[in-house]
Amino acid sequence: MNLSQKLGYPEETKLLLIHADDAGLSHSENRATIQALEAGFVNSYSIMMPCPWSFEMVNYAKNNPQFEHGVHLTLTCEWENYKFGPVAPISEVSSLVDKNGHFYKSRADFFSNAKATEVKKELRAQIERALHFGLQPTHIDSHMYSVGVSPEFLEIYKALGKEYNLAVFLNKAFIESVNLTSESFDFENDIVVEHLHIGHYDYFVKDEQKKYYSSVLDNMVPGLNAILIHPAFDDDEMKAVTINHPNFGSKWRQIDLEFFTSPECKLKLEANNIQLITWKEIKGLNN
Amino acid sequence: MNLSQKLGYPEETKLLLIHADDAGLSHSENRATIQALEAGFVNSYSIMMPCPWSFEMVNYAKNNPQFEHGVHLTLTCEWENYKFGPVAPISEVSSLVDKNGHFYKSRADFFSNAKATEVKKELRAQIERALHFGLQPTHIDSHMYSVGVSPEFLEIYKALGKEYNLAVFLNKAFIESVNLTSESFDFENDIVVEHLHIGHYDYFVKDEQKKYYSSVLDNMVPGLNAILIHPAFDDDEMKAVTINHPNFGSKWRQIDLEFFTSPECKLKLEANNIQLITWKEIKGLNN
Repeated sequence: MNLSQKLGYPEETKLLLIHADDAGLSHSENRATIQALEAGFVNSYSIMMPCPWSFEMVNYAKNNPQFEHGVHLTLTCEWENYKFGPVAPISEVSSLVDKNGHFYKSRADFFSNAKATEVKKELRAQIERALHFGLQPTHIDSHMYSVGVSPEFLEIYKALGKEYNLAVFLNKAFIESVNLTSESFDFENDIVVEHLHIGHYDYFVKDEQKKYYSSVLDNMVPGLNAILIHPAFDDDEMKAVTINHPNFGSKWRQIDLEFFTSPECKLKLEANNIQLITWKEIKGLNN
Repeated sequence: MNLSQKLGYPEETKLLLIHADDAGLSHSENRATIQALEAGFVNSYSIMMPCPWSFEMVNYAKNNPQFEHGVHLTLTCEWENYKFGPVAPISEVSSLVDKNGHFYKSRADFFSNAKATEVKKELRAQIERALHFGLQPTHIDSHMYSVGVSPEFLEIYKALGKEYNLAVFLNKAFIESVNLTSESFDFENDIVVEHLHIGHYDYFVKDEQKKYYSSVLDNMVPGLNAILIHPAFDDDEMKAVTINHPNFGSKWRQIDLEFFTSPECKLKLEANNIQLITWKEIKGLNN
């Protein structure tokens, strides 16, 4: 029985989550995420609780429970001039921050410094903050997949999902760290996204990002697929957030917004018999 | 001897600070503040350390020491969807925040809740943060003049200026609180801005804000004058920051930017023999 069947669909069903990461990051990201959700095919998103614009997105989420939303657990801040740090008191999670109290920029620096007890404390604080605001999240996922740098952090992430009864976004493709391979990780009892699709810098620089997304939809295979996108506008705010960081920069993000609100996307979802799936269905299977 | 004379100018000199508040609030505010500074007549500004975009402005300040900058001490957050809170650990300044850990929106709510010891701790933390980043501020001033709600807070503010050897922006016009009058405050040994000019909602709604600024320049009297402005763009980010808050909203702020970068402003400064003055001069007098 494959995952499609376990989820109650015929064996050959191409199941797809189109997931907008990074809501709450900036107003530009919020505005574009909302536009994408309302266009109809992006069917879930997740909110970065440590970010300056999370409150705006939280208010939207509470007023629009029809859109499934998760907590985009955040342990890094990759931007140059736009900085944020922990939700937990800094004195209690000091291994997660640089000398300015901001999250580290890279997964490598995060990995070199982070203590597991503090990772756990901070991730819990982010989930608790979402609940404090009255959100009813369906899932958790991990910004820059930083929980994938060690089996220990991944276990913390999975345990928190269980504790809070939240689906846990898991995939094998993003796991990487010093001296680790995906074999180090135990996914035996988990629902794992089998086919993860995300834009790549090579396509972006060749101006082939939309072509890539089209091809993902045209070549989708049965099973559980996810496309991770980062909709935002290529506007002044987002240019400044992503300055000197074209990879996942403002231009990239506007392309994501354009493609996943386009008639072409809609047509390709229909023509390829792609079935959008919800976190509630995935979570139901886990329980 | 009037204040102009004390500052080394002839008695009839019209001294003026054109001061941009709220740098660091948002990228839009930073971009416009920088544009105003570089246009040449806005001659000082101050940075809100608790705000999401402070780091960008701090970097600019460090690279551009020719523009005098202060710390815009912040104890309130008047915005609806864009929230920020203390620099000090929340557990140590809990009287300054609402149930979400954000600063109160109004001076009245701040006044009803704030403990003096915590006001002092938070203001100190904001100055220390500026120093930690390597800033060399010339002065401190107070966002929404919230230190003016009680003589006790005002004394804390003045004492911090003394301790850190920073000029203290003082004026009588903004002092207000329950059961207090400006007579409750002791300014005997202080340099006080004698003539404070700031836009007013009545002018804004009548589309007379530029006319007001023109008239301020045309009718300026000798002594120490200050014009407080809030340059930003009426763009998507700033519209969202200031949503439902036209008073000091994005439109207002773009008018500030336009007027104080205009040839008209330049001409009026010259025609009226207005002398721009620096904080270093004011500070020199205090020492």
